[in-house]
Amino acid sequence: MRVGVLTGGGDCPGLNAVIRAVVRKGIKDYGYEFVGFRDGWRGPLEGDTMPLDRAAVSGILPRGGTILGSSRTNPIKIEGGVERIKDNLAGLGLDALVAIGGEDTLGVARQLSDADVHVVGVPKTIDNDLNATDYTFGFDTAVNIATEAIDRLHTTAESHHRALIVEVMGRHAGWIALHSGMAAGANVILIPERPFDIDEVVAHVESRFKTRYAPIIVVAEGAHPKAGQMELATGERDAFGHVRLGGIGQRLAEEIESRTGKEARSVVLGHVQRGGTPSAFDRVLATRLGVHAIDAVHDKDFGKMVALQGTDIVRVELSAATDKLKTVPVERYQEAEVFFG
Amino acid sequence: MRVGVLTGGGDCPGLNAVIRAVVRKGIKDYGYEFVGFRDGWRGPLEGDTMPLDRAAVSGILPRGGTILGSSRTNPIKIEGGVERIKDNLAGLGLDALVAIGGEDTLGVARQLSDADVHVVGVPKTIDNDLNATDYTFGFDTAVNIATEAIDRLHTTAESHHRALIVEVMGRHAGWIALHSGMAAGANVILIPERPFDIDEVVAHVESRFKTRYAPIIVVAEGAHPKAGQMELATGERDAFGHVRLGGIGQRLAEEIESRTGKEARSVVLGHVQRGGTPSAFDRVLATRLGVHAIDAVHDKDFGKMVALQGTDIVRVELSAATDKLKTVPVERYQEAEVFFG
Amino acid sequence: MRVGVLTGGGDCPGLNAVIRAVVRKGIKDYGYEFVGFRDGWRGPLEGDTMPLDRAAVSGILPRGGTILGSSRTNPIKIEGGVERIKDNLAGLGLDALVAIGGEDTLGVARQLSDADVHVVGVPKTIDNDLNATDYTFGFDTAVNIATEAIDRLHTTAESHHRALIVEVMGRHAGWIALHSGMAAGANVILIPERPFDIDEVVAHVESRFKTRYAPIIVVAEGAHPKAGQMELATGERDAFGHVRLGGIGQRLAEEIESRTGKEARSVVLGHVQRGGTPSAFDRVLATRLGVHAIDAVHDKDFGKMVALQGTDIVRVELSAATDKLKTVPVERYQEAEVFFG
Amino acid sequence: MRVGVLTGGGDCPGLNAVIRAVVRKGIKDYGYEFVGFRDGWRGPLEGDTMPLDRAAVSGILPRGGTILGSSRTNPIKIEGGVERIKDNLAGLGLDALVAIGGEDTLGVARQLSDADVHVVGVPKTIDNDLNATDYTFGFDTAVNIATEAIDRLHTTAESHHRALIVEVMGRHAGWIALHSGMAAGANVILIPERPFDIDEVVAHVESRFKTRYAPIIVVAEGAHPKAGQMELATGERDAFGHVRLGGIGQRLAEEIESRTGKEARSVVLGHVQRGGTPSAFDRVLATRLGVHAIDAVHDKDFGKMVALQGTDIVRVELSAATDKLKTVPVERYQEAEVFFG
Repeated sequence: MRVGVLTGGGDCPGLNAVIRAVVRKGIKDYGYEFVGFRDGWRGPLEGDTMPLDRAAVSGILPRGGTILGSSRTNPIKIEGGVERIKDNLAGLGLDALVAIGGEDTLGVARQLSDADVHVVGVPKTIDNDLNATDYTFGFDTAVNIATEAIDRLHTTAESHHRALIVEVMGRHAGWIALHSGMAAGANVILIPERPFDIDEVVAHVESRFKTRYAPIIVVAEGAHPKAGQMELATGERDAFGHVRLGGIGQRLAEEIESRTGKEARSVVLGHVQRGGTPSAFDRVLATRLGVHAIDAVHDKDFGKMVALQGTDIVRVELSAATDKLKTVPVERYQEAEVFFG
Repeated sequence: MRVGVLTGGGDCPGLNAVIRAVVRKGIKDYGYEFVGFRDGWRGPLEGDTMPLDRAAVSGILPRGGTILGSSRTNPIKIEGGVERIKDNLAGLGLDALVAIGGEDTLGVARQLSDADVHVVGVPKTIDNDLNATDYTFGFDTAVNIATEAIDRLHTTAESHHRALIVEVMGRHAGWIALHSGMAAGANVILIPERPFDIDEVVAHVESRFKTRYAPIIVVAEGAHPKAGQMELATGERDAFGHVRLGGIGQRLAEEIESRTGKEARSVVLGHVQRGGTPSAFDRVLATRLGVHAIDAVHDKDFGKMVALQGTDIVRVELSAATDKLKTVPVERYQEAEVFFG
Repeated sequence: MRVGVLTGGGDCPGLNAVIRAVVRKGIKDYGYEFVGFRDGWRGPLEGDTMPLDRAAVSGILPRGGTILGSSRTNPIKIEGGVERIKDNLAGLGLDALVAIGGEDTLGVARQLSDADVHVVGVPKTIDNDLNATDYTFGFDTAVNIATEAIDRLHTTAESHHRALIVEVMGRHAGWIALHSGMAAGANVILIPERPFDIDEVVAHVESRFKTRYAPIIVVAEGAHPKAGQMELATGERDAFGHVRLGGIGQRLAEEIESRTGKEARSVVLGHVQRGGTPSAFDRVLATRLGVHAIDAVHDKDFGKMVALQGTDIVRVELSAATDKLKTVPVERYQEAEVFFG
Repeated sequence: MRVGVLTGGGDCPGLNAVIRAVVRKGIKDYGYEFVGFRDGWRGPLEGDTMPLDRAAVSGILPRGGTILGSSRTNPIKIEGGVERIKDNLAGLGLDALVAIGGEDTLGVARQLSDADVHVVGVPKTIDNDLNATDYTFGFDTAVNIATEAIDRLHTTAESHHRALIVEVMGRHAGWIALHSGMAAGANVILIPERPFDIDEVVAHVESRFKTRYAPIIVVAEGAHPKAGQMELATGERDAFGHVRLGGIGQRLAEEIESRTGKEARSVVLGHVQRGGTPSAFDRVLATRLGVHAIDAVHDKDFGKMVALQGTDIVRVELSAATDKLKTVPVERYQEAEVFFG
């Protein structure tokens, strides 16, 4: 059996651990051969491959990023894309494909599966907002990095009687903000799922300034105030679609300074959160997902995605990945709220 | 309502996070007062207390250890111990007790509960071998520390063509060995649940020496060879019951040297694994357990233990903690085995 | 003898280690009493003090920030400021003052010394740009933090074929950029001491994009292009004097995107660089400086500053701190330049 | 010009950074070709080489260990060893050799230099005990690792009222013990340069047990009691010359337990101290040494060793490396002593 492997979407600590597990288990237990596709769906679309044997995956377990490269190429949106992929897979003599990626990548995998391509998916998102899996790899690493950064900021906040706003990743879901904020003892946590009341935020900040500890606010990049409350940046974007200036963290710092008369600074952790060596949790999770993905291939259980439920790796329909976003439930936010102020 | 809090057994990163969560939530949402007992069950037994208000728990979230101190005092084994505890609790005007600890501590809690003391338990064991909870806090931190150490040892092993044996915690269960070994890419993982065949271990080591990567073996302190295979240390013990010399890691190093003629060194990580600041995962888990423990007190749902199941914190009977040990199932070990050699 | 202690200017990992060393050595070897002044020069100006005995400094060695608080209050600029300080010191029965701070703080110390106040200075600047000392504490910690962040960004850069620009601290001197850039293998390092040629930078980026490794640029916040080369942000500043938008890192990202047509992202490490636990190097340096500062007080060698030269702590004139800035010499930059591209 | 490179002796974080700097600078600025010798002096002795071009050194900067491998082979002790090396160098068309290593490796380099081989040395020892250089790379990394471990042990010591003894590297010199002990706030530091008085050590431990903080002792592996004071292990050694049982840390723990009646545990950090990614300080130092080593080759300034003096890299005679050991001076130990107890 010959199996192709690709990684799509934003990079995420643990991708290499999945690739290594898929390949080592596939070779050792099933005698498979593997072909690596470069840069996500661009690889099978253009037939761009790289060797993927034991030597290729040696030593990659602790390394962040992906040896296969990644991209956001979407073959569905390309005229004849699906057919070209099927042709390329056939031309390479591939019997199956392991696709590692997030909502978009797995959405494509699902459509290919509907078109009779033998695909098994492995869920990936640093934001932890994929349904049907308790956690995605990369998330724990990101939370650890954010937590360590906030730990560091505490001492600066205390020494200078200054509010610090830490903007973390999370466009649609506040998981990283919730976990890193709880872990690092933030005084306020703001998440996209729950528009915030700027008056309440300022009240927390004011009350905190009365103690010897200065306030730390953790805010997800996608958080926003209640309608009409605070003028947000117009969202000037560059050619690649990134907001250039005036993200929510910076806006909050300005607002707090102007309302309280105390200094406030924002820190945007940015890409540091998604790079580097994965945490032990993410390495174990990624390795287990890889092992189970190739088992699914071996069982010819295609059209499925492997997922974590409790401490078990299970198989669910690929559609479960794209059904709906997993957002922070209200009870989880309330658990954190008791520590505010 | 007045509530006592104690921590028993070996220390574990996250204990302070639980204490802080219990106290902050109890004060803020329920208006409770708290009393800290010193050094596990010795505290209520001798009426040794310390103040436990908001100031006492300020800043302790990221700190390892326990501000309450700990001990292995067991009041059940002391004549009249249970009665003395009941008297002391009554004398202090306490309505309930939150007991944070492992099998022993929660076993005492259960017996006190049977004797009509209002107790809620919070499970704690660095070894992750408590039943009824998916994970215990402290475990993730220990696995991260062990993984980082093994990552470091890889470079030494490779540069010197030398086998390295890393002995990690785990007397009865191999969870730390399994997770850190998987996370760090060990070539062999040996756990108490599965007596090892020394010939197989040596064969893995030999095959590894043929590559440019030297072998790394992770061994739980409680692992042992198949019956009759390898003479183990006689287990000379000091006055405190600790094996002084010739732990399993060292014995393996000797055996591998004598059988392969190649250098082998053992490293015993020891207490470094259970100290210091908790990982983000453990801080979140510990905080959530604390929040839910005080909720159980508020609900007068005594005789219960809070536990992690999937991503939820649930309540189970205190007896669930002591029913049986949670050991590594054979399927989990097999997932790792594919990476051996 | 009674001695006052204060910390001024921006916070810096190692301040608490200095305070602890001054106090412990002073009490143990000389039997001194200590008084802590709050928030830099504001403390002696307003007579705002806190107890500073052995208990106060217990456990602070590994903690970032300063238990004394800090500020940028400058008594020289306040009418009658020097007299008020002298009066307050006399009123508190203080015989000497240990002032820990950067150029500004030590400049005040020097003027007080000229006005017959018994002062010993301890140099502090995260930027490492104080003359007369080989290194200042805090710098090594900042370099480690920046290096770890750049290590992490490497994997993202490689997986996405994207240029990453990391803006680090350093308004007037490029030490943090030079050291973290060398340590993390940056492809270009830009420092304030040397206006850069944007064409050369883009050429390095282009050549790097031809390999499988994407370019990483480390830029000090004070770096700038050659005259007329690149339009810089107008430097919109907030009420506290901080540039709000369009720092050099972001501007470079925009310029590189528009010139190369490839994605470029900037990360501003900001205050994370100056918070949290000090590195071992900084703890040792800070402790040694504290020990030697109180020795200077004991020797009545006032008007001096302690400094690191080679592996020795020496005493130099306070004026040496403010004489001139220690910038990166051209030879040091050339050592790094060989790795560019 | 063709240049050989080798690494000898124990591995040390920063070796790869030196190799990379030598090769990149040599190729880029001087157009040299390089040949890597495997496993220290075994390489040139047996003519065992590996390619050493830009690709070979790509990505190795942050990696511990040495891509060239290492050994303790000593050609001086081998009949005709020097001649064989000269023949092999000539046969490979090599004009010069860069030898990276400690006292032994550089001692061989010196003898080869006396025999007209063109050698430049780069000093390396994790123990920091090489004369003529302020610091050796690897030392700072080891101190950071030991410090982090001791930080972690503090919380265990405090929670359990238990003495902890941490044995760190340092056979002949106590630099790692001194720096990590100072950095982590140890209560006693024991070094080989100064035989300790066990009664004093026990007195410090006793006094510390009276506070709520338990004692931490850092002991260099080569430290020993005053003559006749404490029976040391007989030093049972294995075939490779390593003491198997009863190192100084363990002996101290036993002695303290039996004298104080309190629990004491020892932790031997072992090889973890010398593995893994180098600290930023060591990466910068190693890179600078490599750059200057190849400059010395270019200047035909053979028989020299590059060294750090203050912030400068200078050239000294190779003999300076082997003249005498750099041990901890009494004044440095006294600086630490004020924190004991």
